Amino acid sequence: MTNKRLPLLITTGEPAGIGMDVVLLLAAEGKLQDFERPIWVTADSTAMQKRADTLVMAGVLESCPAWQTMDANIETDDFLSQLSQQTLNSDSAFILLNTPCAVPVVHGQINISNSAMVATQLAVAHQLATKKAVAAIVTGPLQKSALIDAGIKLLDGTMFSGHTEFFMQQSGCEKVVMMLANQAMKVALVTTHLALKDIPAAITADNVRQTVQIVIDDMREKFGLMQPRILVCGLNPHAGEGGHLGIEEIEIINPVLQAFIDAGVNISTAMPADTLFTPRHLANCDAVIAMYHDQGLPVLKSHGFGDTVNLTLGLPYIRTSVDHGTALDLAGRGGASATSLYQALLMANEMADKSLINRPLV
Amino acid sequence: MTNKRLPLLITTGEPAGIGMDVVLLLAAEGKLQDFERPIWVTADSTAMQKRADTLVMAGVLESCPAWQTMDANIETDDFLSQLSQQTLNSDSAFILLNTPCAVPVVHGQINISNSAMVATQLAVAHQLATKKAVAAIVTGPLQKSALIDAGIKLLDGTMFSGHTEFFMQQSGCEKVVMMLANQAMKVALVTTHLALKDIPAAITADNVRQTVQIVIDDMREKFGLMQPRILVCGLNPHAGEGGHLGIEEIEIINPVLQAFIDAGVNISTAMPADTLFTPRHLANCDAVIAMYHDQGLPVLKSHGFGDTVNLTLGLPYIRTSVDHGTALDLAGRGGASATSLYQALLMANEMADKSLINRPLV
Repeated sequence: MTNKRLPLLITTGEPAGIGMDVVLLLAAEGKLQDFERPIWVTADSTAMQKRADTLVMAGVLESCPAWQTMDANIETDDFLSQLSQQTLNSDSAFILLNTPCAVPVVHGQINISNSAMVATQLAVAHQLATKKAVAAIVTGPLQKSALIDAGIKLLDGTMFSGHTEFFMQQSGCEKVVMMLANQAMKVALVTTHLALKDIPAAITADNVRQTVQIVIDDMREKFGLMQPRILVCGLNPHAGEGGHLGIEEIEIINPVLQAFIDAGVNISTAMPADTLFTPRHLANCDAVIAMYHDQGLPVLKSHGFGDTVNLTLGLPYIRTSVDHGTALDLAGRGGASATSLYQALLMANEMADKSLINRPLV
Repeated sequence: MTNKRLPLLITTGEPAGIGMDVVLLLAAEGKLQDFERPIWVTADSTAMQKRADTLVMAGVLESCPAWQTMDANIETDDFLSQLSQQTLNSDSAFILLNTPCAVPVVHGQINISNSAMVATQLAVAHQLATKKAVAAIVTGPLQKSALIDAGIKLLDGTMFSGHTEFFMQQSGCEKVVMMLANQAMKVALVTTHLALKDIPAAITADNVRQTVQIVIDDMREKFGLMQPRILVCGLNPHAGEGGHLGIEEIEIINPVLQAFIDAGVNISTAMPADTLFTPRHLANCDAVIAMYHDQGLPVLKSHGFGDTVNLTLGLPYIRTSVDHGTALDLAGRGGASATSLYQALLMANEMADKSLINRPLV
């Protein structure tokens, strides 16, 4: 058993949402065994049991899946060794790390008294990943507005603003890159959630350079691709058409890319997006870098909505995420799909297998 | 024979390029018969014969396809009746309307002495379409720079700037809409070839309203869809996310779309582009309107590069176009693909069948 691989950790996120439901669905289908790794799950253990019972009563689950529970007491010195021991001696793929809620959970009804527990799950995940006790973090959905209403702060004292910012600050990481991936392609973004009018100002040489470097580093370290093949979109239609349709390719983007090419990186200069995303180019490409959200994500999602996984590159650990929200109206009622969580686990598992950054626990 | 359907007219465009080659390839494969309509082709008849001979010599064609020739003398009163007579009495699908070059054509070598003949082809096409002597125009590639170098002007005295502007001015048409279409989807654009930074200023209520109106009108008149189902992208990621990622949806786009909805049009308000272009939405949609080039065309072309046809909506006639250039290096040598021309003919034919704007010639 000593060569057992490191676990994948799922944070179930907002307890009133479908985060717990989709874990229970996978457990009931026996799919948590698919990874040949233990699956650790952060949640309130009482709420999890109640959610399972509710789904059995509602006919969504035939029976309550089995798991083992232990307290996620990351402040305790022997927590990790206990956890390790329990994993080694267990046949269960599914170990619940209890992060207790302040008040009882009602499915579909957010109570901001429980928002601190959502943040605790992320802190547990960060600690376990940093200590290399887990191979990857897979995050379920949280309700950002609830954490803000509860006054949850990030390390730097600013208001909570999302999973990514939380992990960045905990890791002391100044820049990360959002990548979306499915069977068809992997697309990383230079800019993410910006109004269209604000995009050109954000396309700086530094931003492009750092994005490219993170993509290269993580394709190597987290996907095990020593010489990743990267294609990059221009900012403008036809990649600026030699300056006739915009000058950012000539003045900003191509000089940065040329420096990477000169350094031996297998990367393109700025390409027209409507040429790049065609089979003959994608067939010889490990990752695409798009300049902005609607240049890269519509084409990616059109080839695999539901199978699409959100990755954060640049963190010192592997993090994938479901691409859906809390779906409060579906929690405890059935109708939630576990496809996205399963895909996020598959991607995390594949990365964990190929990654150079994880070392065995024992 | 009186119920014979109206012809499709192909302009071969730049004689030094592959425009004639791809017509000859289709003719040799017998594919010009697929449309149950005569195919009229504008070209220099001597150059066409020479190109055919060259391709036979090069082993690209097994033998020279057959066609009938007549002069494209659109100034002559009895040209149309002669042409009509010839078509009725002919078994040939392929009638060449001779638009003579000023100097002999050398394949692969542009001679601007022949650029006036390229413009003449477009004038012939416009006249025949306006007189409803042809059901649709299918344009082959021209070399814009050659026409500019030759000093070819548009009707308003400005320099030649493309097929679309030529047909617009000839038709007295103030606004047209570029649409790209393939088997997967049809995408119309509110803005086309603009640097990204110039897009927000071009998203005006007038522009959105006129674009939508033209799409509705042409889906009715040219595709025979009385109640077209139209989905519209927002300008910003997540369609502005309620104003958090841009205000154009709230201030400009949605009020225009709501007015169409209130008038009974089957159209959406602004949708996130990465949600819109997924099968469950596209399955119930006749046309998508994207705000800009790289929002709509990468996803469209990723689902059918090579099958993609360029349409101009808003003209008083049907016009489709190949989506490739003159490919001077391939002219007269083989290697050119006629797929795009064939697709443009298929689309023109389908539209001609469904269109309400064409009436029989006899």
